[in-house]
Amino acid sequence: MKILLIGGTGTIGKSVAEKLKLDHEVIIASKSNGDYKVDLTSVESIEKMYKDIPNIDAVISATGASRFSDLSELTPEINEIAINSKLKGQVNLVLVGQHYINEGGSFTLTTGIMMDDPILKGSSAAMANGAVAGFVKSAAIELKRNIRINTVSPNVLEESIDKFGAFFKGFNPVPADKVANAFVKSVEGAQTGQVYKVY
Amino acid sequence: MKILLIGGTGTIGKSVAEKLKLDHEVIIASKSNGDYKVDLTSVESIEKMYKDIPNIDAVISATGASRFSDLSELTPEINEIAINSKLKGQVNLVLVGQHYINEGGSFTLTTGIMMDDPILKGSSAAMANGAVAGFVKSAAIELKRNIRINTVSPNVLEESIDKFGAFFKGFNPVPADKVANAFVKSVEGAQTGQVYKVY
Ligand SMILES: NC(=O)c1ccc[n+]([C@@H]2O[C@H](COP(=O)([O-])OP(=O)(O)OC[C@H]3O[C@@H](n4cnc5c(N)ncnc54)[C@H](OP(=O)(O)O)[C@@H]3O)[C@@H](O)[C@H]2O)c1
Ligand SMILES: NC(=O)c1ccc[n+]([C@@H]2O[C@H](COP(=O)([O-])OP(=O)(O)OC[C@H]3O[C@@H](n4cnc5c(N)ncnc54)[C@H](OP(=O)(O)O)[C@@H]3O)[C@@H](O)[C@H]2O)c1
Repeated sequence: MKILLIGGTGTIGKSVAEKLKLDHEVIIASKSNGDYKVDLTSVESIEKMYKDIPNIDAVISATGASRFSDLSELTPEINEIAINSKLKGQVNLVLVGQHYINEGGSFTLTTGIMMDDPILKGSSAAMANGAVAGFVKSAAIELKRNIRINTVSPNVLEESIDKFGAFFKGFNPVPADKVANAFVKSVEGAQTGQVYKVY
Repeated sequence: MKILLIGGTGTIGKSVAEKLKLDHEVIIASKSNGDYKVDLTSVESIEKMYKDIPNIDAVISATGASRFSDLSELTPEINEIAINSKLKGQVNLVLVGQHYINEGGSFTLTTGIMMDDPILKGSSAAMANGAVAGFVKSAAIELKRNIRINTVSPNVLEESIDKFGAFFKGFNPVPADKVANAFVKSVEGAQTGQVYKVY
Protein backbone atom coordinates (compact mmCIF):
# COMPACT_ATOMS: atom_id res chain seq x y z
CA MET A 1 0.00 0.00 0.00
CA LYS A 2 0.95 3.63 -0.38
CA ILE A 3 0.48 5.20 3.05
CA LEU A 4 0.48 8.91 3.88
CA LEU A 5 1.47 9.39 7.53
CA ILE A 6 0.94 12.91 8.86
CA GLY A 7 2.87 13.53 12.07
CA GLY A 8 5.30 10.79 11.14
CA THR A 9 8.21 12.64 12.80
CA GLY A 10 6.56 12.62 16.24
CA THR A 11 6.74 10.17 19.13
CA ILE A 12 3.78 8.09 18.00
CA GLY A 13 4.31 8.71 14.28
CA LYS A 14 7.91 7.46 14.26
CA SER A 15 6.86 4.19 15.83
CA VAL A 16 3.97 3.79 13.37
CA ALA A 17 6.29 4.53 10.44
CA GLU A 18 8.84 1.97 11.57
CA LYS A 19 6.26 -0.79 11.67
CA LEU A 20 4.44 0.05 8.43
CA LYS A 21 7.65 0.53 6.43
CA LEU A 22 8.34 -3.19 6.73
CA ASP A 23 5.53 -3.92 4.27
CA HIS A 24 4.46 -0.64 2.66
CA GLU A 25 5.53 2.57 1.02
CA VAL A 26 5.20 5.23 3.74
CA ILE A 27 5.31 8.96 3.00
CA ILE A 28 6.06 11.01 6.10
CA ALA A 29 4.32 14.36 6.14
CA SER A 30 4.54 16.89 8.95
CA LYS A 31 4.65 20.57 9.66
CA SER A 32 8.42 21.17 9.47
CA ASN A 33 10.49 17.98 9.60
CA GLY A 34 8.77 15.48 7.30
CA ASP A 35 9.54 14.43 3.72
CA TYR A 36 6.48 16.43 2.75
CA LYS A 37 5.50 19.65 4.54
CA VAL A 38 1.83 20.15 5.37
CA ASP A 39 -0.03 22.29 7.88
CA LEU A 40 -3.26 20.56 8.93
CA THR A 41 -4.61 23.81 10.33
CA SER A 42 -4.90 25.06 6.73
CA VAL A 43 -7.52 23.60 4.37
CA GLU A 44 -5.50 24.90 1.40
CA SER A 45 -2.41 23.06 2.60
CA ILE A 46 -4.43 19.81 2.95
CA GLU A 47 -5.89 20.25 -0.56
CA LYS A 48 -2.42 20.84 -1.99
CA MET A 49 -1.04 17.74 -0.27
CA TYR A 50 -3.67 15.46 -1.80
CA LYS A 51 -3.00 16.97 -5.23
CA ASP A 52 0.78 16.61 -4.83
CA ILE A 53 0.62 13.02 -3.57
CA PRO A 54 -1.81 11.00 -5.68
CA ASN A 55 -2.84 7.35 -5.41
CA ILE A 56 -2.94 7.02 -1.61
CA ASP A 57 -4.38 3.89 0.01
CA ALA A 58 -4.22 4.86 3.67
CA VAL A 59 -4.07 8.19 5.46
CA ILE A 60 -2.88 8.28 9.06
CA SER A 61 -2.92 11.28 11.33
CA ALA A 62 -0.60 10.98 14.34
CA THR A 63 -0.81 14.63 15.20
CA GLY A 64 -3.08 17.21 16.79
CA ALA A 65 -2.06 20.02 19.10
CA SER A 66 -3.94 21.23 22.16
CA ARG A 67 -3.02 23.33 25.17
CA PHE A 68 -3.02 21.84 28.67
CA SER A 69 -4.71 24.48 30.82
CA ASP A 70 -6.53 24.73 34.10
CA LEU A 71 -10.22 25.05 33.25
CA SER A 72 -10.33 28.31 35.20
CA GLU A 73 -7.68 29.73 32.88
CA LEU A 74 -9.00 28.16 29.68
CA THR A 75 -10.28 31.01 27.52
CA PRO A 76 -12.21 30.65 24.25
CA GLU A 77 -9.02 31.86 22.57
CA ILE A 78 -6.71 29.23 24.09
CA ASN A 79 -9.34 26.60 23.32
CA GLU A 80 -8.98 27.48 19.62
CA ILE A 81 -5.61 25.71 19.52
CA ALA A 82 -7.27 22.31 20.01
CA ILE A 83 -10.18 23.22 17.75
CA ASN A 84 -7.91 24.28 14.89
CA SER A 85 -5.38 21.47 15.14
CA LYS A 86 -6.58 18.31 16.91
CA LEU A 87 -10.20 18.75 15.82
CA LYS A 88 -10.47 20.60 12.51
CA GLY A 89 -7.03 19.51 11.32
CA GLN A 90 -7.98 15.85 11.56
CA VAL A 91 -11.62 16.18 10.45
CA ASN A 92 -10.68 18.30 7.43
CA LEU A 93 -8.07 15.71 6.46
CA VAL A 94 -11.04 13.36 5.98
CA LEU A 95 -13.55 15.84 4.51
CA VAL A 96 -11.07 16.80 1.81
CA GLY A 97 -9.34 13.44 1.48
CA GLN A 98 -12.52 11.37 0.94
CA HIS A 99 -12.53 12.71 -2.63
CA TYR A 100 -8.88 11.82 -3.32
CA ILE A 101 -7.84 8.51 -1.74
CA ASN A 102 -8.13 5.15 -3.48
CA GLU A 103 -11.18 2.86 -3.40
CA GLY A 104 -10.95 0.57 -0.39
CA GLY A 105 -8.63 3.03 1.35
CA SER A 106 -8.71 4.11 4.98
CA PHE A 107 -8.32 7.00 7.39
CA THR A 108 -6.91 6.52 10.89
CA LEU A 109 -7.02 9.48 13.26
CA THR A 110 -5.61 9.95 16.76
CA THR A 111 -7.59 10.73 19.91
CA GLY A 112 -6.53 9.85 23.48
CA ILE A 113 -7.49 8.48 26.87
CA MET A 114 -8.33 11.95 28.28
CA MET A 115 -11.77 11.82 26.67
CA ASP A 116 -12.67 8.72 28.70
CA ASP A 117 -10.63 9.18 31.85
CA PRO A 118 -10.35 12.95 32.41
CA ILE A 119 -7.30 14.65 33.91
CA LEU A 120 -6.76 18.10 35.38
CA LYS A 121 -5.94 20.67 32.67
CA GLY A 122 -7.36 18.30 30.04
CA SER A 123 -10.75 19.78 29.06
CA SER A 124 -9.65 21.29 25.77
CA ALA A 125 -8.04 18.06 24.55
CA ALA A 126 -10.95 15.96 25.86
CA MET A 127 -13.30 18.17 23.84
CA ALA A 128 -11.29 17.73 20.64
CA ASN A 129 -10.85 13.99 21.19
CA GLY A 130 -14.59 13.58 21.78
CA ALA A 131 -15.29 15.47 18.57
CA VAL A 132 -12.97 13.28 16.51
CA ALA A 133 -14.40 10.08 18.04
CA GLY A 134 -17.99 11.22 17.35
CA PHE A 135 -17.09 12.17 13.80
CA VAL A 136 -15.31 8.88 13.08
CA LYS A 137 -18.24 6.80 14.27
CA SER A 138 -20.67 8.74 12.11
CA ALA A 139 -18.51 9.22 9.02
CA ALA A 140 -17.88 5.45 8.93
CA ILE A 141 -21.47 4.72 7.88
CA GLU A 142 -21.30 7.19 4.99
CA LEU A 143 -17.88 6.99 3.38
CA LYS A 144 -18.19 5.82 -0.23
CA ARG A 145 -16.04 3.49 -2.36
CA ASN A 146 -15.40 1.09 0.57
CA ILE A 147 -13.30 3.67 2.36
CA ARG A 148 -12.96 2.98 6.08
CA ILE A 149 -12.22 5.19 9.09
CA ASN A 150 -11.07 4.50 12.65
CA THR A 151 -9.34 6.30 15.48
CA VAL A 152 -6.63 5.12 17.85
CA SER A 153 -6.99 6.41 21.41
CA PRO A 154 -3.68 5.92 23.28
CA ASN A 155 -2.99 6.10 26.99
CA VAL A 156 0.04 8.23 27.82
CA LEU A 157 3.11 6.69 26.16
CA GLU A 158 6.11 5.33 28.07
CA GLU A 159 8.21 7.37 25.63
CA SER A 160 6.37 10.58 26.64
CA ILE A 161 6.57 10.21 30.41
CA ASP A 162 9.31 12.82 30.76
CA LYS A 163 7.11 15.30 28.92
CA PHE A 164 3.61 14.42 30.18
CA GLY A 165 4.11 12.22 33.27
CA ALA A 166 3.13 14.99 35.68
CA PHE A 167 -0.33 15.22 34.08
CA PHE A 168 -0.93 11.47 34.14
CA LYS A 169 -0.07 10.41 37.69
CA GLY A 170 -1.52 6.96 38.38
CA PHE A 171 -2.03 6.11 34.71
CA ASN A 172 -0.35 3.01 33.26
CA PRO A 173 1.84 4.19 30.38
CA VAL A 174 1.84 2.08 27.22
CA PRO A 175 4.80 1.49 24.89
CA ALA A 176 4.77 3.28 21.51
CA ASP A 177 5.17 -0.11 19.89
CA LYS A 178 1.80 -1.25 21.23
CA VAL A 179 0.11 1.97 20.13
CA ALA A 180 1.62 1.54 16.67
CA ASN A 181 0.02 -1.89 16.42
CA ALA A 182 -3.43 -0.31 16.71
CA PHE A 183 -2.63 1.85 13.68
CA VAL A 184 -1.48 -1.26 11.78
CA LYS A 185 -4.73 -3.01 12.71
CA SER A 186 -6.75 -0.07 11.42
CA VAL A 187 -4.83 0.10 8.13
CA GLU A 188 -4.52 -3.61 7.41
CA GLY A 189 -7.78 -4.81 8.95
CA ALA A 190 -11.32 -4.45 7.64
CA GLN A 191 -13.10 -2.75 10.54
CA THR A 192 -14.58 0.72 10.36
CA GLY A 193 -16.04 3.23 12.80
CA GLN A 194 -13.90 1.88 15.64
CA VAL A 195 -12.13 3.61 18.51
CA TYR A 196 -9.09 1.42 19.24
CA LYS A 197 -8.35 2.09 22.88
CA VAL A 198 -4.76 1.28 23.86
CA TYR A 199 -5.20 1.74 27.60
CA MET B 1 -33.17 29.50 41.86
CA LYS B 2 -32.49 32.04 39.17
CA ILE B 3 -32.14 30.10 35.93
CA LEU B 4 -30.82 31.39 32.62
CA LEU B 5 -32.23 29.28 29.78
CA ILE B 6 -30.64 29.90 26.39
CA GLY B 7 -32.73 28.56 23.52
CA GLY B 8 -35.83 28.81 25.71
CA THR B 9 -38.01 29.67 22.70
CA GLY B 10 -37.23 26.40 20.88
CA THR B 11 -38.95 23.01 20.89
CA ILE B 12 -36.90 21.61 23.76
CA GLY B 13 -36.40 24.95 25.50
CA LYS B 14 -40.12 25.76 25.74
CA SER B 15 -40.79 22.46 27.46
CA VAL B 16 -37.88 22.95 29.87
CA ALA B 17 -39.07 26.47 30.68
CA GLU B 18 -42.61 25.31 31.40
CA LYS B 19 -41.41 22.76 33.93
CA LEU B 20 -38.82 24.93 35.67
CA LYS B 21 -41.10 27.97 35.93
CA LEU B 22 -43.27 26.08 38.42
CA ASP B 23 -40.52 26.43 41.04
CA HIS B 24 -37.97 28.93 39.80
CA GLU B 25 -37.30 32.28 38.19
CA VAL B 26 -36.49 31.48 34.55
CA ILE B 27 -34.95 34.01 32.16
CA ILE B 28 -35.43 33.04 28.53
CA ALA B 29 -32.53 34.06 26.32
CA SER B 30 -32.28 33.34 22.62
CA LYS B 31 -31.03 34.75 19.38
CA SER B 32 -34.13 36.70 18.30
CA ASN B 33 -37.29 35.76 20.21
CA GLY B 34 -36.28 35.53 23.88
CA ASP B 35 -36.70 38.00 26.74
CA TYR B 36 -32.96 38.58 26.45
CA LYS B 37 -31.15 38.48 23.08
CA VAL B 38 -27.84 36.65 22.93
CA ASP B 39 -25.82 35.12 20.11
CA LEU B 40 -23.83 32.15 21.41
CA THR B 41 -21.59 32.25 18.35
CA SER B 42 -20.11 35.49 19.72
CA VAL B 43 -17.90 35.47 22.82
CA GLU B 44 -18.59 39.19 23.28
CA SER B 45 -22.34 38.56 23.31
CA ILE B 46 -21.88 35.81 25.94
CA GLU B 47 -19.72 38.11 28.11
CA LYS B 48 -22.29 40.87 27.85
CA MET B 49 -25.11 38.51 28.85
CA TYR B 50 -23.34 37.43 32.05
CA LYS B 51 -22.67 41.07 32.90
CA ASP B 52 -26.28 42.08 32.18
CA ILE B 53 -27.82 39.21 34.14
CA PRO B 54 -26.03 38.80 37.49
CA ASN B 55 -26.62 36.28 40.27
CA ILE B 56 -27.43 33.20 38.16
CA ASP B 57 -27.71 29.77 39.79
CA ALA B 58 -28.19 27.58 36.74
CA VAL B 59 -27.35 28.02 33.07
CA ILE B 60 -29.09 25.81 30.53
CA SER B 61 -28.31 25.65 26.84
CA ALA B 62 -31.10 24.14 24.74
CA THR B 63 -29.61 25.29 21.49
CA GLY B 64 -26.86 24.52 19.00
CA ALA B 65 -27.12 24.67 15.22
CA SER B 66 -25.57 22.23 12.77
CA ARG B 67 -26.15 21.44 9.13
CA PHE B 68 -27.44 18.01 8.07
CA SER B 69 -25.30 17.09 5.05
CA ASP B 70 -24.21 14.01 3.17
CA LEU B 71 -20.62 13.36 4.21
CA SER B 72 -19.60 13.53 0.54
CA GLU B 73 -20.95 17.08 0.40
CA LEU B 74 -19.77 18.15 3.84
CA THR B 75 -17.05 20.75 3.30
CA PRO B 76 -14.82 22.27 5.99
CA GLU B 77 -16.86 25.44 5.50
CA ILE B 78 -20.29 23.83 6.07
CA ASN B 79 -18.82 22.00 9.06
CA GLU B 80 -18.07 25.39 10.65
CA ILE B 81 -21.77 25.89 11.37
CA ALA B 82 -21.73 23.10 13.95
CA ILE B 83 -18.32 24.12 15.27
CA ASN B 84 -19.36 27.73 15.80
CA SER B 85 -22.79 27.09 17.27
CA LYS B 86 -23.32 23.62 18.77
CA LEU B 87 -19.70 23.23 19.84
CA LYS B 88 -18.07 26.59 20.57
CA GLY B 89 -21.35 28.30 21.46
CA GLN B 90 -22.00 25.83 24.26
CA VAL B 91 -18.39 25.38 25.42
CA ASN B 92 -17.79 29.15 25.53
CA LEU B 93 -20.96 29.56 27.57
CA VAL B 94 -19.14 27.54 30.23
CA LEU B 95 -15.62 28.92 29.77
CA VAL B 96 -16.93 32.46 30.24
CA GLY B 97 -19.75 31.63 32.65
CA GLN B 98 -17.62 29.72 35.18
CA HIS B 99 -16.36 33.10 36.41
CA TYR B 100 -19.84 34.61 36.80
CA ILE B 101 -22.41 32.11 38.09
CA ASN B 102 -23.14 31.55 41.76
CA GLU B 103 -21.35 29.09 44.05
CA GLY B 104 -23.07 25.71 43.84
CA GLY B 105 -24.51 26.62 40.45
CA SER B 106 -24.73 24.41 37.38
CA PHE B 107 -24.39 24.23 33.61
CA THR B 108 -26.55 21.92 31.50
CA LEU B 109 -25.73 21.61 27.80
CA THR B 110 -27.50 19.78 24.99
CA THR B 111 -26.04 17.02 22.83
CA GLY B 112 -28.05 14.29 21.04
CA ILE B 113 -28.41 10.64 20.15
CA MET B 114 -26.55 11.04 16.83
CA MET B 115 -23.20 10.82 18.59
CA ASP B 116 -24.04 7.32 19.86
CA ASP B 117 -26.30 5.98 17.13
CA PRO B 118 -25.17 7.64 13.89
CA ILE B 119 -27.51 8.59 11.06
CA LEU B 120 -26.89 9.50 7.42
CA LYS B 121 -26.08 13.22 7.02
CA GLY B 122 -25.24 13.41 10.72
CA SER B 123 -21.41 13.56 10.89
CA SER B 124 -21.14 17.26 11.61
CA ALA B 125 -23.63 17.16 14.49
CA ALA B 126 -22.12 13.91 15.82
CA MET B 127 -18.73 15.64 15.90
CA ALA B 128 -20.08 18.64 17.83
CA ASN B 129 -22.08 16.44 20.22
CA GLY B 130 -19.01 14.28 20.89
CA ALA B 131 -16.99 17.42 21.62
CA VAL B 132 -19.53 18.75 24.09
CA ALA B 133 -19.83 15.37 25.84
CA GLY B 134 -16.02 15.06 26.11
CA PHE B 135 -15.75 18.59 27.44
CA VAL B 136 -18.52 18.13 30.02
CA LYS B 137 -16.96 14.97 31.43
CA SER B 138 -13.58 16.64 31.80
CA ALA B 139 -14.71 20.10 32.95
CA ALA B 140 -16.75 18.46 35.72
CA ILE B 141 -13.62 17.45 37.63
CA GLU B 142 -12.22 20.97 37.54
CA LEU B 143 -15.06 23.44 38.04
CA LYS B 144 -14.53 25.42 41.24
CA ARG B 145 -16.96 26.70 43.91
CA ASN B 146 -19.05 23.48 43.74
CA ILE B 147 -20.28 24.31 40.27
CA ARG B 148 -21.59 21.28 38.38
CA ILE B 149 -21.96 20.46 34.69
CA ASN B 150 -23.98 17.87 32.75
CA THR B 151 -25.37 17.37 29.28
CA VAL B 152 -28.73 16.04 28.15
CA SER B 153 -28.60 13.89 25.03
CA PRO B 154 -32.12 13.54 23.59
CA ASN B 155 -33.40 11.10 21.00
CA VAL B 156 -35.44 12.77 18.25
CA LEU B 157 -38.47 14.45 19.84
CA GLU B 158 -42.06 13.51 19.08
CA GLU B 159 -42.66 17.24 18.64
CA SER B 160 -39.93 17.41 15.97
CA ILE B 161 -41.00 14.46 13.85
CA ASP B 162 -42.49 16.65 11.11
CA LYS B 163 -39.16 18.46 10.81
CA PHE B 164 -36.64 15.65 11.38
CA GLY B 165 -38.55 12.38 11.03
CA ALA B 166 -37.06 11.61 7.62
CA PHE B 167 -33.55 11.55 9.13
CA PHE B 168 -34.52 9.32 12.05
CA LYS B 169 -36.42 6.41 10.47
CA GLY B 170 -36.63 3.52 12.92
CA PHE B 171 -35.79 5.66 15.96
CA ASN B 172 -38.25 5.80 18.87
CA PRO B 173 -39.18 9.47 19.36
CA VAL B 174 -39.39 10.76 22.92
CA PRO B 175 -41.81 13.39 24.24
CA ALA B 176 -40.40 16.86 25.00
CA ASP B 177 -41.78 16.48 28.49
CA LYS B 178 -39.49 13.52 29.18
CA VAL B 179 -36.48 15.36 27.78
CA ALA B 180 -37.32 18.37 29.97
CA ASN B 181 -37.22 16.12 33.03
CA ALA B 182 -33.55 15.35 32.35
CA PHE B 183 -32.80 19.08 32.46
CA VAL B 184 -34.68 19.36 35.74
CA LYS B 185 -32.66 16.44 37.13
CA SER B 186 -29.43 18.14 36.12
CA VAL B 187 -30.42 21.48 37.68
CA GLU B 188 -32.04 20.22 40.85
CA GLY B 189 -29.90 17.12 41.46
CA ALA B 190 -26.33 16.90 42.69
CA GLN B 191 -24.63 14.89 39.95
CA THR B 192 -21.88 16.24 37.74
CA GLY B 193 -20.07 15.10 34.59
CA GLN B 194 -23.09 13.12 33.42
CA VAL B 195 -24.54 12.57 29.96
CA TYR B 196 -28.27 12.09 30.56
CA LYS B 197 -29.40 9.98 27.64
CA VAL B 198 -33.12 10.25 26.92
CA TYR B 199 -33.30 7.50 24.31
N1 LIG C 1 2.49 11.08 23.33
C1 LIG C 1 1.50 10.65 24.11
O1 LIG C 1 1.70 10.14 25.23
C2 LIG C 1 0.10 10.71 23.60
C3 LIG C 1 -0.92 9.99 24.27
C4 LIG C 1 -2.22 10.06 23.79
C5 LIG C 1 -2.51 10.82 22.67
N2 LIG C 1 -1.52 11.52 22.05
C6 LIG C 1 -1.86 12.32 20.86
O2 LIG C 1 -1.21 11.79 19.75
C7 LIG C 1 -0.87 12.84 18.83
C8 LIG C 1 0.61 12.77 18.52
O3 LIG C 1 1.31 12.83 19.75
P1 LIG C 1 2.91 12.77 19.82
O4 LIG C 1 3.29 12.76 21.25
O5 LIG C 1 3.44 11.71 18.91
O6 LIG C 1 3.25 14.23 19.23
P2 LIG C 1 4.67 14.87 18.91
O7 LIG C 1 5.80 13.96 19.27
O8 LIG C 1 4.65 16.25 19.46
O9 LIG C 1 4.65 14.97 17.30
C9 LIG C 1 3.72 15.80 16.67
C10 LIG C 1 3.76 15.53 15.19
O10 LIG C 1 2.77 16.31 14.55
C11 LIG C 1 3.35 17.16 13.57
N3 LIG C 1 2.60 18.41 13.52
C12 LIG C 1 2.44 19.34 14.49
N4 LIG C 1 1.64 20.33 14.08
C13 LIG C 1 1.28 20.01 12.81
C14 LIG C 1 0.47 20.65 11.82
N5 LIG C 1 -0.17 21.81 12.07
N6 LIG C 1 0.32 20.04 10.62
C15 LIG C 1 0.93 18.87 10.34
N7 LIG C 1 1.71 18.23 11.23
C16 LIG C 1 1.88 18.80 12.45
C17 LIG C 1 4.78 17.34 14.02
O11 LIG C 1 5.55 17.71 12.89
P3 LIG C 1 7.04 18.37 12.94
O12 LIG C 1 7.96 17.33 13.53
O13 LIG C 1 7.36 18.64 11.50
O14 LIG C 1 6.91 19.60 13.79
C18 LIG C 1 5.09 15.93 14.53
O15 LIG C 1 5.31 15.05 13.44
C19 LIG C 1 -1.32 14.13 19.51
O16 LIG C 1 -2.61 14.44 19.06
C20 LIG C 1 -1.38 13.75 20.97
O17 LIG C 1 -2.29 14.53 21.71
C21 LIG C 1 -0.23 11.46 22.48
N1 LIG D 1 -35.60 18.63 18.40
C1 LIG D 1 -35.04 17.42 18.45
O1 LIG D 1 -35.65 16.39 18.08
C2 LIG D 1 -33.67 17.27 19.00
C3 LIG D 1 -33.18 16.00 19.33
C4 LIG D 1 -31.90 15.89 19.83
C5 LIG D 1 -31.10 17.01 20.02
N2 LIG D 1 -31.60 18.24 19.68
C6 LIG D 1 -30.74 19.40 19.88
O2 LIG D 1 -31.30 20.24 20.85
C7 LIG D 1 -31.01 21.61 20.57
C8 LIG D 1 -32.32 22.41 20.51
O3 LIG D 1 -33.15 21.77 19.56
P1 LIG D 1 -34.62 22.33 19.25
O4 LIG D 1 -35.24 21.39 18.28
O5 LIG D 1 -35.32 22.67 20.51
O6 LIG D 1 -34.22 23.67 18.46
P2 LIG D 1 -35.19 24.83 17.90
O7 LIG D 1 -36.62 24.52 18.13
O8 LIG D 1 -34.72 25.10 16.50
O9 LIG D 1 -34.78 26.07 18.83
C9 LIG D 1 -33.53 26.62 18.77
C10 LIG D 1 -33.37 27.60 19.89
O10 LIG D 1 -32.02 28.09 19.91
C11 LIG D 1 -32.03 29.50 19.75
N3 LIG D 1 -30.83 29.89 18.99
C12 LIG D 1 -30.51 29.58 17.72
N4 LIG D 1 -29.31 30.08 17.40
C13 LIG D 1 -28.86 30.75 18.50
C14 LIG D 1 -27.69 31.50 18.79
N5 LIG D 1 -26.70 31.65 17.90
N6 LIG D 1 -27.56 32.03 20.04
C15 LIG D 1 -28.53 31.87 20.97
N7 LIG D 1 -29.67 31.18 20.74
C16 LIG D 1 -29.83 30.63 19.51
C17 LIG D 1 -33.33 29.84 19.06
O11 LIG D 1 -33.63 31.20 19.34
P3 LIG D 1 -34.70 32.09 18.52
O12 LIG D 1 -36.07 31.47 18.73
O13 LIG D 1 -34.60 33.43 19.13
O14 LIG D 1 -34.26 32.03 17.07
C18 LIG D 1 -34.25 28.84 19.76
O15 LIG D 1 -34.58 29.28 21.04
C19 LIG D 1 -30.22 21.59 19.25
O16 LIG D 1 -28.84 21.57 19.55
C20 LIG D 1 -30.61 20.26 18.63
O17 LIG D 1 -29.62 19.75 17.77
C21 LIG D 1 -32.86 18.40 19.19
